[in-house]
Amino acid sequence: MDAEEFRRRGMEMVDYVANYLENIEQRPVYPDVEPGYLRSLIPTEAPLEPDNYDDIIKDVDRVIMPGVTHWHSPYFFAYFPAATSYPALLADMLCGAIGCIGFSWAASPACTELETVMLDWLGKMLNLPEHFIAGTHGHGGGVIQSTASEATLVTLLAARCKAVRRVQASNPEKSEAEILSKLVAYTSEQAHCSVERASLIGGAMIKKVPTDNNYAVGGDMFKKMLEEDKAAGLIPFYFCATLGTTASCAFDRITELGPICNKENIWMHIDAAYAGSAFICPEFRPLLNGIEFADSFNFNPHKWLLINFDCSTMWYVLYVYILWDTKTCLTKGELLIFFSHWGIPLGRRFRSLKMWFVFRMYGIQGLQHVGLAKEFESLVRADKRFEICAEVIMGLVCFRLKGSNRLNELLLKRITKSREIHLVPCQLSGRFVLRFAICARTTDSRHIQQAWRHITQLTFEILQEPNH
Amino acid sequence: MDAEEFRRRGMEMVDYVANYLENIEQRPVYPDVEPGYLRSLIPTEAPLEPDNYDDIIKDVDRVIMPGVTHWHSPYFFAYFPAATSYPALLADMLCGAIGCIGFSWAASPACTELETVMLDWLGKMLNLPEHFIAGTHGHGGGVIQSTASEATLVTLLAARCKAVRRVQASNPEKSEAEILSKLVAYTSEQAHCSVERASLIGGAMIKKVPTDNNYAVGGDMFKKMLEEDKAAGLIPFYFCATLGTTASCAFDRITELGPICNKENIWMHIDAAYAGSAFICPEFRPLLNGIEFADSFNFNPHKWLLINFDCSTMWYVLYVYILWDTKTCLTKGELLIFFSHWGIPLGRRFRSLKMWFVFRMYGIQGLQHVGLAKEFESLVRADKRFEICAEVIMGLVCFRLKGSNRLNELLLKRITKSREIHLVPCQLSGRFVLRFAICARTTDSRHIQQAWRHITQLTFEILQEPNH
Repeated sequence: MDAEEFRRRGMEMVDYVANYLENIEQRPVYPDVEPGYLRSLIPTEAPLEPDNYDDIIKDVDRVIMPGVTHWHSPYFFAYFPAATSYPALLADMLCGAIGCIGFSWAASPACTELETVMLDWLGKMLNLPEHFIAGTHGHGGGVIQSTASEATLVTLLAARCKAVRRVQASNPEKSEAEILSKLVAYTSEQAHCSVERASLIGGAMIKKVPTDNNYAVGGDMFKKMLEEDKAAGLIPFYFCATLGTTASCAFDRITELGPICNKENIWMHIDAAYAGSAFICPEFRPLLNGIEFADSFNFNPHKWLLINFDCSTMWYVLYVYILWDTKTCLTKGELLIFFSHWGIPLGRRFRSLKMWFVFRMYGIQGLQHVGLAKEFESLVRADKRFEICAEVIMGLVCFRLKGSNRLNELLLKRITKSREIHLVPCQLSGRFVLRFAICARTTDSRHIQQAWRHITQLTFEILQEPNH
Repeated sequence: MDAEEFRRRGMEMVDYVANYLENIEQRPVYPDVEPGYLRSLIPTEAPLEPDNYDDIIKDVDRVIMPGVTHWHSPYFFAYFPAATSYPALLADMLCGAIGCIGFSWAASPACTELETVMLDWLGKMLNLPEHFIAGTHGHGGGVIQSTASEATLVTLLAARCKAVRRVQASNPEKSEAEILSKLVAYTSEQAHCSVERASLIGGAMIKKVPTDNNYAVGGDMFKKMLEEDKAAGLIPFYFCATLGTTASCAFDRITELGPICNKENIWMHIDAAYAGSAFICPEFRPLLNGIEFADSFNFNPHKWLLINFDCSTMWYVLYVYILWDTKTCLTKGELLIFFSHWGIPLGRRFRSLKMWFVFRMYGIQGLQHVGLAKEFESLVRADKRFEICAEVIMGLVCFRLKGSNRLNELLLKRITKSREIHLVPCQLSGRFVLRFAICARTTDSRHIQQAWRHITQLTFEILQEPNH
C-alpha cells in the first residue's frame, strides 16, 4: 500500500469510524457469541500472498463487529467509562504516523517535553500541590502510564526502595532480603485487585484495612493496625488510598490518613483511577483535599476525560525516578527526563498529543461535566422494590432488588441476555449488587430512562414467575 | 466536534499523515532543539475556552515537528527499527474507534479471540514448537505485551513463583522470604538493561554470564557459574537468553543452554526483541533452533514486522498464567482467557487488529525481507581506515574508525550535529563503537550509499585536522 492508496483507504476508514460511532446506539451493546466463535470464522494460518483490502474490511463486519462489546454505546453501563472523543482519535492518528519511541529525551524531544507540559496543564486543572508540578525548575512532575495498575506497581517499588535504604541507613547489618520480609503495604479491603497484585510482584506483604459503613478507610482503623504491626516487628512502608473505589466509588479519608503516613514515614499513593477526572470540577475538588500529604497520585483520563485509552496520568516528586532504578540504564549524569525510568516499559508512544488535542478542542470549561447518575438514582429511589447500596457521589449507582442475592443474580442474567443494556455486578457487605455506571460520552437522559424502563420490565417479569 | 466535522478533519489528517511519510526524507532526521525548547512555545495552562482546530494543526508544525526525531526517515540508523506501515495505521484507527478495554473475554470477545488467533498465526510463521500454540485445545498460547521489558518481567515473576512453590514442596519449613533471598537469575553480560531491571523489581539476585568473542553466552561458562552458585547454597531459577543483543546483535547459544536449563529446573526465557521478526525467513530460522527448550519466548513485531508500536508478542505454556497470579482477580473457575492475568496492565487495546491487517495485506511472502546491512558492511570493509566490530548477521553493522575511542566519539558527534543521518553508539570490549542499524521500511541502497558518503566525508575532515 503506497501513500496514494493510504489516502483513499484512510478516508474510507475515517468514514467507517464516523458511521460506527454515529450509529453505535443501534447495535446490541453486548455481543451474542460463544467463547471460541472467532477461530472458526478465519483461516488457521496467515495467507502466503496478500489478501484484498476490501475483503479485510468486509471481514471487520463479518468477524470482528459481532464479537465486540460496544463500550461507547449509550447503553453501556458496565465496569467504568472508557473515554473517547474525535479530537483524541485525530491526535492518535498523528501519534501513529510519527511513530517515535520516546524512551529518552533525544529519542524524540517533543515526545518527552509535550508530556511534561501536558501533565503540568492537567495538574493545574486539578489544582495539585506545587510539589507535583514540573514547571521549569520543579521538584516534581507527571508522566503517562498505560494503566493505573502500572502506576500502583511503580510507586510501590519506589516506596520499597526508599524504605530499604532508610532501614539500612540506621541498620547497616540488615540484608535487603531481611528487610523485605518485614515490609508491609496497606490498602483498603475495597481497593482494586491491582494493589494486591503490585505487592505480590514487589514481594512485599500487604494488609487490607477494614472499611466503615461507607466502604471508606478512616484514620483510626489504620492507626490501630499500624501499632499492632510495628509492635510485631514489621515495617509499614506503603499505603495505597483509593478515591473512588471500583465497587461503589467510596473515598478513603485521606485528610486523616495522610498525616499518619507522613509521620510514620509511610509512602502514601493515591489511586483515583475513576474519580480523578471529576476533580477538575470545583464542586468535586474538595474530595481531593489531603492530596498535599501524598507522595504520588494517579488517575485515568482515559476513563472520563475524553482521552482514549491508554492515558493513565501520574505525578510524583522527582527524586523517585532516581530512587528505584539507579542500578541500571541511567545515562552518565544526564539531567534530562528519561521517562523509561519512570515506569515498567522502556518504549512509549507519543500519547500526550491526545491530551493536547482534547484540552485545546474542549477547553477546561468544556470538560467540566459529570454524568447523570443522580437521575438514575432518583428513579431507583422512587421504586420501593429497589434499594440504593452506596452513596451516589459521581457517575456510579450501586443498587439492587430488595431480596435475595439469587433474585438479583437472576435479574442481571436477564439483563445480560437481553443485550439491550450492559452492566456488571459487585459485592458489597456480602450482597450481590448491580453497578450502573454512566459510561458513554453520548449517554443522555433518554438512555437513562430507557435503561430504567428495561430494568423494571424485566423485574416485573421475574416477580411474576412462580418462584417469586 | 461532531461526526460530520470528524469526517472532514479526519480526511485532512489522513492527508497530513500521507504527506508526512511521503516526504519524510526531506526533513532533518534529528531535531535542532535544546532541552526545554517546547515549554516556551505554548501556554503554561490549558485554555478555558476551546481553541480553534486549525490553530492546533498549525501548532503541530510550529511546536511538535521541530522537536521530532524522525524514526521513519530513511536516514535514521539509530537504536533499532520502529515498524510502521499504512495497513497498521488503518487498523489502529479502527482500534481507537472501537475503544474497548480487553481485560477479559466478556469485556470484548473479539479482542481476546483475535489476539489468540493472531499469535497462533505468527507462531506458525516462526515455526514455534507446538506447545506454544493455543489452537483449540492447546497447552500454550501467545499474548501481546507492550514492550519486551514487560515480557521479561512477567516471565521472571512466573519463574519466581514456580521456583518458590517447587522449593516449598520439598522444604515446607522454608519461608518465601528465605527462598527469595537464595534465588538467582542469569543473563548475558550483553543483555538489555531491562533484564537486570526485571530482577530488581522481582527482588531476585541476578548474575551476568560472561560472553565469548562473539559476545554470545555458551553452555560451558553458564554451567560453571551454576555449579559454583549451587555449591554456595543458591537456587538458580531463571535464565534470560538473548537472540540478537542490542549492542551487536549477538546470539546466545540456546541449543547448549536449553538442555542445561531444562535439567536444572531453570526457566529459560528467550528475548529476541530485535531479531525475532527475521525468523519468519527460512534462511534465518536456524538461529531459533533450541526454542524447543524454552519456557517462554518474546520478540517485537513493532521493530521489524511493519506493525506499529506497541506490539511485543510473547508465548508461553498455559500453566503460567495460573501460576503467577492466583491470589487475585481469578474469576470463579473461568476457563476463558483473561489477558489481564498475562501481564502487568489490566486494561488493553485491541492491538491484534494491526497484526491482522498487516499479515493479510502483505502476506507471509511479502514480509520475508531483511534489511541491507550487508551492503553497508561491504562499504566499511572496503575502507581500510575502518573496522567491523561484530559479525553482521541481520540489519545491524557495528563499526569504528581504527584508532582511539576519542576519535570515534568525535566522529559520532559530528554525525549527530550534521543531522543528515542519525545513529547511536555502543560499547564492545571497552571500545566505543558506532551502531549502524537499518531501520526505516523505505531505506534503500541510495540511502545507504549516501550515508556512507556522508560518514567518509566527515571522517576525511576530522583526519585533516591538526590533532589527527
